[in-house]
Amino acid sequence: MNKPYVKLDKNNAAVLLVDHQAGLLSLVRDIDPDRFNNNVLALADATRYFKLPTILTTSFEDGPNGPLMPELTEMFPDAPYIARPGQINAWDNEDFVKAVKATGKKQLIIAGVVTEVCVAFPALAAIEEGFEVFVVTDASGTFNELTRNSAWDRMSAAGVQLMTWFGLACELHRDWRNDVEGLGTLFANHIPDYKNLMTSYFTLKGDH
Amino acid sequence: MNKPYVKLDKNNAAVLLVDHQAGLLSLVRDIDPDRFNNNVLALADATRYFKLPTILTTSFEDGPNGPLMPELTEMFPDAPYIARPGQINAWDNEDFVKAVKATGKKQLIIAGVVTEVCVAFPALAAIEEGFEVFVVTDASGTFNELTRNSAWDRMSAAGVQLMTWFGLACELHRDWRNDVEGLGTLFANHIPDYKNLMTSYFTLKGDH
Amino acid sequence: MNKPYVKLDKNNAAVLLVDHQAGLLSLVRDIDPDRFNNNVLALADATRYFKLPTILTTSFEDGPNGPLMPELTEMFPDAPYIARPGQINAWDNEDFVKAVKATGKKQLIIAGVVTEVCVAFPALAAIEEGFEVFVVTDASGTFNELTRNSAWDRMSAAGVQLMTWFGLACELHRDWRNDVEGLGTLFANHIPDYKNLMTSYFTLKGDH
Amino acid sequence: MNKPYVKLDKNNAAVLLVDHQAGLLSLVRDIDPDRFNNNVLALADATRYFKLPTILTTSFEDGPNGPLMPELTEMFPDAPYIARPGQINAWDNEDFVKAVKATGKKQLIIAGVVTEVCVAFPALAAIEEGFEVFVVTDASGTFNELTRNSAWDRMSAAGVQLMTWFGLACELHRDWRNDVEGLGTLFANHIPDYKNLMTSYFTLKGDH
Amino acid sequence: MNKPYVKLDKNNAAVLLVDHQAGLLSLVRDIDPDRFNNNVLALADATRYFKLPTILTTSFEDGPNGPLMPELTEMFPDAPYIARPGQINAWDNEDFVKAVKATGKKQLIIAGVVTEVCVAFPALAAIEEGFEVFVVTDASGTFNELTRNSAWDRMSAAGVQLMTWFGLACELHRDWRNDVEGLGTLFANHIPDYKNLMTSYFTLKGDH
Amino acid sequence: MNKPYVKLDKNNAAVLLVDHQAGLLSLVRDIDPDRFNNNVLALADATRYFKLPTILTTSFEDGPNGPLMPELTEMFPDAPYIARPGQINAWDNEDFVKAVKATGKKQLIIAGVVTEVCVAFPALAAIEEGFEVFVVTDASGTFNELTRNSAWDRMSAAGVQLMTWFGLACELHRDWRNDVEGLGTLFANHIPDYKNLMTSYFTLKGDH
Amino acid sequence: MNKPYVKLDKNNAAVLLVDHQAGLLSLVRDIDPDRFNNNVLALADATRYFKLPTILTTSFEDGPNGPLMPELTEMFPDAPYIARPGQINAWDNEDFVKAVKATGKKQLIIAGVVTEVCVAFPALAAIEEGFEVFVVTDASGTFNELTRNSAWDRMSAAGVQLMTWFGLACELHRDWRNDVEGLGTLFANHIPDYKNLMTSYFTLKGDH
Amino acid sequence: MNKPYVKLDKNNAAVLLVDHQAGLLSLVRDIDPDRFNNNVLALADATRYFKLPTILTTSFEDGPNGPLMPELTEMFPDAPYIARPGQINAWDNEDFVKAVKATGKKQLIIAGVVTEVCVAFPALAAIEEGFEVFVVTDASGTFNELTRNSAWDRMSAAGVQLMTWFGLACELHRDWRNDVEGLGTLFANHIPDYKNLMTSYFTLKGDH
Repeated sequence: MNKPYVKLDKNNAAVLLVDHQAGLLSLVRDIDPDRFNNNVLALADATRYFKLPTILTTSFEDGPNGPLMPELTEMFPDAPYIARPGQINAWDNEDFVKAVKATGKKQLIIAGVVTEVCVAFPALAAIEEGFEVFVVTDASGTFNELTRNSAWDRMSAAGVQLMTWFGLACELHRDWRNDVEGLGTLFANHIPDYKNLMTSYFTLKGDH
Repeated sequence: MNKPYVKLDKNNAAVLLVDHQAGLLSLVRDIDPDRFNNNVLALADATRYFKLPTILTTSFEDGPNGPLMPELTEMFPDAPYIARPGQINAWDNEDFVKAVKATGKKQLIIAGVVTEVCVAFPALAAIEEGFEVFVVTDASGTFNELTRNSAWDRMSAAGVQLMTWFGLACELHRDWRNDVEGLGTLFANHIPDYKNLMTSYFTLKGDH
Repeated sequence: MNKPYVKLDKNNAAVLLVDHQAGLLSLVRDIDPDRFNNNVLALADATRYFKLPTILTTSFEDGPNGPLMPELTEMFPDAPYIARPGQINAWDNEDFVKAVKATGKKQLIIAGVVTEVCVAFPALAAIEEGFEVFVVTDASGTFNELTRNSAWDRMSAAGVQLMTWFGLACELHRDWRNDVEGLGTLFANHIPDYKNLMTSYFTLKGDH
Repeated sequence: MNKPYVKLDKNNAAVLLVDHQAGLLSLVRDIDPDRFNNNVLALADATRYFKLPTILTTSFEDGPNGPLMPELTEMFPDAPYIARPGQINAWDNEDFVKAVKATGKKQLIIAGVVTEVCVAFPALAAIEEGFEVFVVTDASGTFNELTRNSAWDRMSAAGVQLMTWFGLACELHRDWRNDVEGLGTLFANHIPDYKNLMTSYFTLKGDH
Repeated sequence: MNKPYVKLDKNNAAVLLVDHQAGLLSLVRDIDPDRFNNNVLALADATRYFKLPTILTTSFEDGPNGPLMPELTEMFPDAPYIARPGQINAWDNEDFVKAVKATGKKQLIIAGVVTEVCVAFPALAAIEEGFEVFVVTDASGTFNELTRNSAWDRMSAAGVQLMTWFGLACELHRDWRNDVEGLGTLFANHIPDYKNLMTSYFTLKGDH
Repeated sequence: MNKPYVKLDKNNAAVLLVDHQAGLLSLVRDIDPDRFNNNVLALADATRYFKLPTILTTSFEDGPNGPLMPELTEMFPDAPYIARPGQINAWDNEDFVKAVKATGKKQLIIAGVVTEVCVAFPALAAIEEGFEVFVVTDASGTFNELTRNSAWDRMSAAGVQLMTWFGLACELHRDWRNDVEGLGTLFANHIPDYKNLMTSYFTLKGDH
Repeated sequence: MNKPYVKLDKNNAAVLLVDHQAGLLSLVRDIDPDRFNNNVLALADATRYFKLPTILTTSFEDGPNGPLMPELTEMFPDAPYIARPGQINAWDNEDFVKAVKATGKKQLIIAGVVTEVCVAFPALAAIEEGFEVFVVTDASGTFNELTRNSAWDRMSAAGVQLMTWFGLACELHRDWRNDVEGLGTLFANHIPDYKNLMTSYFTLKGDH
Repeated sequence: MNKPYVKLDKNNAAVLLVDHQAGLLSLVRDIDPDRFNNNVLALADATRYFKLPTILTTSFEDGPNGPLMPELTEMFPDAPYIARPGQINAWDNEDFVKAVKATGKKQLIIAGVVTEVCVAFPALAAIEEGFEVFVVTDASGTFNELTRNSAWDRMSAAGVQLMTWFGLACELHRDWRNDVEGLGTLFANHIPDYKNLMTSYFTLKGDH
């Protein structure tokens, strides 16, 4: 009766970044902005590091919702970019679904703003179509903890696996020996405590 | 084994507003009063905007529980209004259930005060009779977080979908193009951050 | 796949108060002492009000754990009282289980200190034997929120229904008309906000 | 050595609303947006109710900081409006100081965004010039509690009196009998709990 | 430059209970209702225990603010009771000030609802007239922590000493030997943790 | 449909302590360091007390992650110690799995740093292979509450039982009479409140 | 007008530990018990390390308040120990004041339970007699944050300097070179994060 | 009696960065690491932007405290760098004081780790020598809020002005027109919400 252990597989996963737009970001108040900004960029960095196919999408980006975070556009210049003309659920947009299916991947990693809409809706729809869905909870934001908890409950009940960017990177990487320096750099760039460990360590090692 | 994705459908949903009474509202301490008041009115506005059949009910309104929030009476002058003579669970009141069934809708959206009683009891009863039940968590209030979490756990385990008024409005609307201005106005009236985005946007656009 | 709606029935329910002992109470830090004390007494009052068979039990009451709260001994002078000689799980004590079964009730309402042990252990054991188990979360206390949340997760997954004393009283009572004054008094004695509503109401009514 | 009791006097007080601009408001995270929005409008309403001279000012309103909250422009159509071309401290702007002095008032009530800059700077400068300064803490917002507490400490040490909009309205009004209905309406419009009290009260009175 | 140590003296202190009214109590949200209710009653009990002259006052008790908490009326049947016809600051009411002065005491202990108005205003006024003022912070309530902190800052800067009911009782009593049982009973009735200590202690002692 | 009650059995349980390394511990910020340190040592003490087979493992201990907490090495000098050369999930390390299986136990008790990786990954893998898995939540730490909650949700959905070290000790011990002094000492050493109870109790008893 | 910088001087300071009794400790709820227990022991360790004259005192230790923490009795076997027969303020006890004065020190370091009484009363009294008073805030505990903040405000206004045990140790030590190992050990024993730094450091250094 | 308004003056201010070392940073738990890291770098950026003389200092950097954050060394290659051989209070180090005095500035801006020691000690000492001291509260960190609040109270009482990096930058800059782009860039790089405002603004402007 338990959910089986479906492990993230870097050869079978795609990343969907939904509506991280400059205007909508001002609605995010369940995570502090310094931390949230860092989490989103960390997920983006991890995505690039693992060379996962990525799809960007926005909602009404010419209106008050504002343009996509410029870092994302810059980091994924060749990713399919679907500026949705109106569909709130990205999964209701044919181009988006086509792009998702074109990746040929069965595992979908989703993050976005706001959690209970832009993340939950496509997550629920994708599960219904047989995808394995992983929501990156700390790179998804919403109005407050109450709304977040409601969204998590709905998604979890539907079979979504709730992950964080760090857990995701670790599950994709599997073994440090695949690339110690690469993973270490990813962590140092987005986890100040980890960077401090590395600073102290390499300073001491360098003494010799 | 997962809950299937049951989407809100504006053609198949009714709204039950349970015991938002002036006296009982003083018991609500899990959500700040400014926010809670706004959430209830936002749900009411959304209900009217989507023209969903609505049922109002109160418990002992002539006693200390007090009258219904006057805004609700004014906004839904033609809604069935069941002043329950004593039943704590609205679903134990025949007139209420009749009114619900008379809507012909299969999806019930429920909000009320207090969450673990006035919301949870009819929600659990309605599921038992085959309805699809969506509780609007941020327009439902109770004594504190501990009581809220207990109520959520019981409802979620029974199959209730936990929604917020914003998620509900988005899932009902589906596509901005159905009415950009209407939905935008609904959001601006109840989300100060969204209003600010619109203010800045339209001011800038008007410059040209 | 949802849990069915098992409603509390005052003709079919017994209350188990487990280890509310003067020493152990100093371990409870997930609920403020004024509130927790009030919740336990409210549950006791409700239990008496609904004339539910009640069983008291303690763990090592002659040692540091200390004697039962004297209010409980006074309120239930005729209740079976099992001072366990060592069993941590009350359900491992034959006399306790016998006393439970002697009530002939199928629904067990459990509260105690600390939640993850004195409450969770008998709750899990009782479910295994086919009882319907309702844990009164706000009359059960433990070290901190983290331990509480772990305990809730384990109990909920096993089929326990998480209730609060107020929800319990409402579900047992069903209809105010069964006894308006009795229920009102119960609430006024344990919910200051409700007492205030009644004070204002009856003062105003008395003006005329 | 104590600060003397300097009471607000409606005949001797002016209100300075500093930089409540649509863009800057997205920086305010020490108070929830529903509550903050309400507090600012409550202060504005109180200001109008007591007919206090009011001065509006903005910082770079044509840039990312955005336009003033439209409600403020509408509520104070005749107030001096100083769109500062660059001065961060409004008190560094000659027109602003002239407008302040033109009111002929000795008591300055200040609120704005963000607290440690747009509020604290003119507050500190005004005290230096001999004004009595009252900062409306709940209508002033900033990044987080740490920054707020730093700002309060600096202002309080300099002699600022920290008020809230409700305390301010009460100190200005002095006696309900000056206008029961007016003050009651002001409170009902901005304090949901107070509105509930009035709803219950007048409903009951109307019964007879 | 420090405030001198002004100690409470039971022969020279009077207690002012300001506006603990059933309606106004619903505005108090900076302290949980179970705790706040207990604190107010504890202060009242301490006041009676030390036989301090006490003055009760209310604001508009026939309107939405509601009647005084009935426990207070019952506990102080002979205390001067000033139902203010409109003055928000009790000190603006001549009868109140007369009653205060008639006590002949120099130290005033003040508690009330809400802190920044009903407590702070008379506290500031009394200091100005040369009284030594002690505010009982935990028997005074207001909208939220921000408003409380503003009020504390203003009062402390003006020379008010911030006390709690427990500190007050201890400073008035000076020495347990003046009456061990009396003080012990006062504490046991209002501090559940202290009652537990006493229960364990006397049970053990009684064993022998 | 409920999870069956799988009870910890001291004859059938092994303990896996994963990556409690001096460097990694600086990443733990969801539990205060004094409490977390105490919890880990309490779990280690309980493990020794019940003579459970124990396996220690570390990740890259020669790098920034740092060496294992020295207390653990000292307390379990004969335990299998697997310094993983790179596998992030300990279960991907053959030696580790061999050591686990060599214990011949079916129940695995897991704690580690960080929760969503070093704990969750082997927990999920072990369940898949038919083990009964108990995670000690308060001896496992991670970046913040959001990441913890995500990890708990994923593990609980997969069938993990969430325990605390105190609940674990109680469920393993079953009956105080098996060794009153031993269990009492374990609790006194790691629960200050319990030690206080014992101090008061034995002091009083010693008086006679 | 500022408080002058009065630095702790290990040749001129004495430590007063007031009422850290097993019963009273159950009242402390503003600091988690693991942390509070650690802080008190850290202060005691620091006191011994700097060989400061120390005075122990208790209130009614034969009653429910319970005996002094046994660690303190053991650590300071030769310290004056004043079991007060009834005085709540230790400064009202002649023997206590005599013992204080017998130390010949001008600086008094005070910690105790509860903050607003057992700490604040002697602190205020000592200042009045010309001592320089330093309260160790994190080794002093009370009912909740509100009572703590009230006590801090009263003490700070009277001239008390608020310190923590770590700040105190650093100000007394002045220069690491006076004894690197001693101070390092003190910190490692009471600051898990610091111990981790040392573990990593010495492990790495030992590699060579 | 109020503190006079001492304004930061970019021609008369120097910055002291004290002990932001990789090891010590793991002790900082009163501010989340993402935010704290950002605040320190923001202060450093602002320091460079305003070309303020800067002094770096460390405590025992070859031991467990670890090396200075490498960003700081890189950003201030020419700043005096005092690696203190043992003095805990940087002001006890002659070279440090000499370097401070060599700047010829009267205003000292101090930030460091941990607040109650590395920041408070030199701050208090500098005030005693007649400097005007501004502590950057959000670029200074410590163990928890209790220790922070103690440190703030001591520093504020001694005359320190508590600032944040944002307030500091604004007070130094005075007028946007001095360099709109420079200040805007500084803010955008360290305040995600501000960056979002700029992104939206410039995107819209660029549309035309």
